[in-house]
Amino acid sequence: MAPGATSKKKTDDEQSTKDSLIHLSNPHLEKMKDDILYHFALGTGTHDFPALFGDIKFVCVGGSPSRMKAFTTYIAKELGLESASGDYPNICEGTDRYAMYKVGPVLSVSHGMGIPSIAIMLHELIKLLYHSKCSNVTIIRIGTSGGIGLEPGSVVVTRQSVDATFKPQFEQVILGKTVIRSTNLDDQLAKELMQCSKEINQFNTVIGNTMCTLDFYEGQARLDGAICSYAEEEKLKYLKDAYDAGVRNIEMESSVFAALCNLSGVRAAVVCVTLLNRLEGDQISSSHDVLVEYQQRPQKLVGHFIKKRLGKV
Amino acid sequence: MAPGATSKKKTDDEQSTKDSLIHLSNPHLEKMKDDILYHFALGTGTHDFPALFGDIKFVCVGGSPSRMKAFTTYIAKELGLESASGDYPNICEGTDRYAMYKVGPVLSVSHGMGIPSIAIMLHELIKLLYHSKCSNVTIIRIGTSGGIGLEPGSVVVTRQSVDATFKPQFEQVILGKTVIRSTNLDDQLAKELMQCSKEINQFNTVIGNTMCTLDFYEGQARLDGAICSYAEEEKLKYLKDAYDAGVRNIEMESSVFAALCNLSGVRAAVVCVTLLNRLEGDQISSSHDVLVEYQQRPQKLVGHFIKKRLGKV
Repeated sequence: MAPGATSKKKTDDEQSTKDSLIHLSNPHLEKMKDDILYHFALGTGTHDFPALFGDIKFVCVGGSPSRMKAFTTYIAKELGLESASGDYPNICEGTDRYAMYKVGPVLSVSHGMGIPSIAIMLHELIKLLYHSKCSNVTIIRIGTSGGIGLEPGSVVVTRQSVDATFKPQFEQVILGKTVIRSTNLDDQLAKELMQCSKEINQFNTVIGNTMCTLDFYEGQARLDGAICSYAEEEKLKYLKDAYDAGVRNIEMESSVFAALCNLSGVRAAVVCVTLLNRLEGDQISSSHDVLVEYQQRPQKLVGHFIKKRLGKV
Repeated sequence: MAPGATSKKKTDDEQSTKDSLIHLSNPHLEKMKDDILYHFALGTGTHDFPALFGDIKFVCVGGSPSRMKAFTTYIAKELGLESASGDYPNICEGTDRYAMYKVGPVLSVSHGMGIPSIAIMLHELIKLLYHSKCSNVTIIRIGTSGGIGLEPGSVVVTRQSVDATFKPQFEQVILGKTVIRSTNLDDQLAKELMQCSKEINQFNTVIGNTMCTLDFYEGQARLDGAICSYAEEEKLKYLKDAYDAGVRNIEMESSVFAALCNLSGVRAAVVCVTLLNRLEGDQISSSHDVLVEYQQRPQKLVGHFIKKRLGKV
């Protein structure tokens, strides 16, 4: 059990102090002989976690497996850690639930779409880092989102993740009862990332609130789902209300990401590119090549951040 | 339930009559020239939907892309529709969000994990079936789950999908307000599937309620997540209360699946194998081979059902 893990007695709302080790707020795990991380197809009884993962300092997560593989190739080149083959093995090759790659101190993991999918991954990732005795870990989500009032291709570094009523909270259901958790992210880390964006100076980056929804169509006020019961004026009013509440982009994972990283004492940030301006439309109709270039922007920003932290810039 | 959502509640709760065509409850779509199904990398402007998909009568969906590919290979053989190469192209090859395969009248689609992930897929699937002018379509989710009080490997055909408080409802947030939707499934279809299980007589199958949660760890009362604030006794009480409410298995997609199929007038069923008995533990520790065999059971059951419907048994 990590020092400081007694903080599990504190309420969920309280942000854990950001000391160097992972906080595992679960006394039951001590009693388990082995721990199977089922959705990674990894286990403490079959894998030497400290040897495999003990040197990790940065974890980058994103929805798409191929995007996380592309990030791995990119960061390997940036850090001068290319593999001879030019390929990187998927550490989770025993399952197709998630993909995981590692280059030096950087772990890349896919998380699928939506709060439940990223939550499963984060529970197992946090246990992986704990079992591996990792210290001073920074986790960054590099993703895609819909923008509000921003030119498409802009990057948003999240100040606070807010829910569909613009409150900075995440509702976790436990034993049928709802518990409210804080969705604060690390201010200092967000500022560092903004500074990195200024240094590379290749695209527009802003700090703003990110709305995290449970649904892509009705939950984000789109008019183009299979079901829609509201008018365009109602949609626009909702999105403008969100803008007035400081929301600059909408995605589907940041709230539980912030909540779980908070509770585990891990510094965390969310860096998402906006694929469209939702005040202008709902369909993602930019060309494949434009969308690919947009998706590289969070990777470039975070790549620069990692190089800087490692003294390689 | 927010005030003002009352009128929506009434509409949403009303189950659409199950006539032969897909109901598209969205007046805005008529005004759109093209429709891009972004997460399928398909669009009406680039693909001839009626020619590609017009003959679909059965859609089988499941979380894992490789499992849905395995089902495609299996059903092709069962229906005598094997491809010469023995391989089946992924119709969604332009994206890694979902995988989609088609053999004769059977479409197989992966949906990832959790309500948000399957909801995105279903919105786009329902629009795909509508644009393709499909009629008399049956959709079946073939998945995995945790069982309650059942021998591992048992298959559950869902009577009702219930939430974490055991109510047969799904909460959809629209413009920041919560709307309650029905999660009823087709009784007659569930009975047909039970009859199929009796005919193949290879594994235990029951009809029961299925609890659909937003989280795999705390949301399902597991003791082995990165965070756990309750005692084993509280966990067991919750699971026994669920059993007493008719719940026989727990998964993470059935509620929105039932709700969206209801609203679109599509006959739907959920057939999930149980990988473990949650009254006995939390970790999925059966061998790879045992789990693979378990996961084939819903495929066999639904394969028999499709053959029977097509007069091939």
